[in-house]
Amino acid sequence: MLETKADYDEMLSTLGRRLRPNAIRKLTALLGSKEVISLAAGAPSFETFPLEELAGISARVIRERGRFALQYGPTRGNSGLVEAVAATLRSRGIATAEPSGVLITTGSQQGLDLVARVLLDPGDIVMVELPSYIGGLIALHNAQAEMIGVRQDDDGIVIGELREKIERALSEGRRVKCVYTIPNFQNPSGVTLAAPRRSELIEIAEEYDLLVIEDDAYFDLYFTEAASSLVPLAALCPERVIYLGTFSKVLAPGLRTAWVRAPEALAAKLELAKEGADLSSSVLDQAIVMEAIREGLIERRLPELRRFYQIRCAAMLDALDRFAPDGTRWTKPAGGFFILMQLAAEADSAALLPQAIESGVAYVPGESFFVDGSGANTLRLAFSKESPEAIADGVERMCRVFRNAKAQGRA
Amino acid sequence: MLETKADYDEMLSTLGRRLRPNAIRKLTALLGSKEVISLAAGAPSFETFPLEELAGISARVIRERGRFALQYGPTRGNSGLVEAVAATLRSRGIATAEPSGVLITTGSQQGLDLVARVLLDPGDIVMVELPSYIGGLIALHNAQAEMIGVRQDDDGIVIGELREKIERALSEGRRVKCVYTIPNFQNPSGVTLAAPRRSELIEIAEEYDLLVIEDDAYFDLYFTEAASSLVPLAALCPERVIYLGTFSKVLAPGLRTAWVRAPEALAAKLELAKEGADLSSSVLDQAIVMEAIREGLIERRLPELRRFYQIRCAAMLDALDRFAPDGTRWTKPAGGFFILMQLAAEADSAALLPQAIESGVAYVPGESFFVDGSGANTLRLAFSKESPEAIADGVERMCRVFRNAKAQGRA
Repeated sequence: MLETKADYDEMLSTLGRRLRPNAIRKLTALLGSKEVISLAAGAPSFETFPLEELAGISARVIRERGRFALQYGPTRGNSGLVEAVAATLRSRGIATAEPSGVLITTGSQQGLDLVARVLLDPGDIVMVELPSYIGGLIALHNAQAEMIGVRQDDDGIVIGELREKIERALSEGRRVKCVYTIPNFQNPSGVTLAAPRRSELIEIAEEYDLLVIEDDAYFDLYFTEAASSLVPLAALCPERVIYLGTFSKVLAPGLRTAWVRAPEALAAKLELAKEGADLSSSVLDQAIVMEAIREGLIERRLPELRRFYQIRCAAMLDALDRFAPDGTRWTKPAGGFFILMQLAAEADSAALLPQAIESGVAYVPGESFFVDGSGANTLRLAFSKESPEAIADGVERMCRVFRNAKAQGRA
Repeated sequence: MLETKADYDEMLSTLGRRLRPNAIRKLTALLGSKEVISLAAGAPSFETFPLEELAGISARVIRERGRFALQYGPTRGNSGLVEAVAATLRSRGIATAEPSGVLITTGSQQGLDLVARVLLDPGDIVMVELPSYIGGLIALHNAQAEMIGVRQDDDGIVIGELREKIERALSEGRRVKCVYTIPNFQNPSGVTLAAPRRSELIEIAEEYDLLVIEDDAYFDLYFTEAASSLVPLAALCPERVIYLGTFSKVLAPGLRTAWVRAPEALAAKLELAKEGADLSSSVLDQAIVMEAIREGLIERRLPELRRFYQIRCAAMLDALDRFAPDGTRWTKPAGGFFILMQLAAEADSAALLPQAIESGVAYVPGESFFVDGSGANTLRLAFSKESPEAIADGVERMCRVFRNAKAQGRA
């Protein structure tokens, strides 16, 4: 169910890019008045939050180290946590990762915002995936970057198209600065960048002297052996890749604790930018996360978390197999939270949303994820939040709406 | 004592604006090797943190409402907290304050950053106090604003000079956009803006169509009856004043919870900017602060907090009376954390700092607080952190350094 204001917020802010205030008001009223199965919100399930453990840790951290945990902290972050992140990075294959390249941020969103502010001048071009994460696109937009979208297929961003679009932009005299990618279980597509493509992407970055912003929020949440063995782009080329990760998906997003790793000179600039942005992230949250790491709480729960989301993903895939109308397609994620569904070419997922909500199910229309204005016939389905039973029920209701609309010639 | 890395950070980042890396390395080594009385760090005393109460609250909030407190939250902030802040604002005389004008931020630093990003175009002029808070100056600088400094006397910003400098800038065809002021117990000067000046400042804002950024971090920490009855600028003219406050000084800064109140249309823009900046501030911190308000913990402790800091302020003023060399002056704060000391015109407080640290005491050289490059003979003394005994001891050591330097003709 849409249980928090944040759920509405995400869906409405996404919708807001397309709908008129009037339509949003109607939708909000509808949402408020109904029990709706949410395939919309991209949040982890609260069932995965280790409440008892975190309650104990927070009380202990405040009692025993409150004079530090409640005081101002260093802009760079809790030094133990910075070291723990550097160790994690080395375990992911980034052999040269040191604390001097790591900055703790208020969620990955702040990392993206700081990176965009520090790296980009107005008019700089960033190559982004079609579709891509809205928060990342907002951060790039706020830095007045221009974005060029590159199609993804089942193996991730299409390298040939990437090269072609870079060449075209350069031939027009534009400044192509970097590539923004979410290589694992992408938000919103659920697609994973295949291993050969990773090397090819780095080759392109070297050839055209580009930086890569690698947003790896879902790294730990793989469902397959193959996906578990993929190496971050940052491991292939640490001097060109800015690498972002988070504790939001593996512990709790309300703690707003994430990190960015960058080449040392850039990390120093990010630190200066962060000093101006908020002095530091929550010092208490950082102390809690640090203690959760020290006690092994995060590591210990990962296998269980993977199973938790894999079961939900399977429930959604199974329901789509059973109920999706002919002529629709969807991705088959190897991890993460999301499936991207594609309706018939003429369908408009935003126009159908009010009916879906009336039928008791919500999703996020896809168009806002596509910087080139395409994607009106797509939608993002999150399997992260509802139970397997609710997911099956929601998908069935949603597919009925799609089928009826099709029968009436409206999709 | 300088007990956290953040202490060093603040002093060194301030110093960094003047000293060469070599000098900073030496100073850092010195700081690491000695027990130093810190009159430098502008942080609250950890003795004021209600550890037991906050430990209990945090555990309870996580156990009972963790599914919300650990989840993503609305960008605008915890809705109960937003309402509580609106009520606080009404109690401060801002009769029209409503939740729709309030945004919760990651410390006031984020409020300043968002306001600067949303309000200012590169080259816009902001009138600032001489001296002013470095975090505010950094936020304005990062938005590529130009700053014009206006002198303060014992009653705050000098209105005649403010008008004159606005006129001059306008006559040069420059865009004067706003005034940034810290009216109560200013950081770093300790000066309070007198009541008649508040009205005059608003008159100027209306006459020249300026906005006012009112940074009121120390509002609750007054030491005198007179200071307790001063009304925020935002109460005089809510449609022109962006008003910032924080829980950092009255509860704990590590919770990084503050707020900004702005006219409704601007608040909506700030919310959009915050969505791109970090999605939301720590949801757990907000839930803890909300519960502390609900239980009356913050309100109940205010009288005790005021006494706590007033005793330290008195200890510092007393020590200055006893030990300060002839020809020095200092401010007499009616609240807050800071005293600004002014040495003889030819003295250089940054040059004397290594000797002071050698003698076991640290302060912040004043020059970085002055946007016009003046203030080399000033220093900021914080009475917020050390015990009254340590303050007296520190001031005595520091004054001995100043006296010796003077005797040797170096200050």
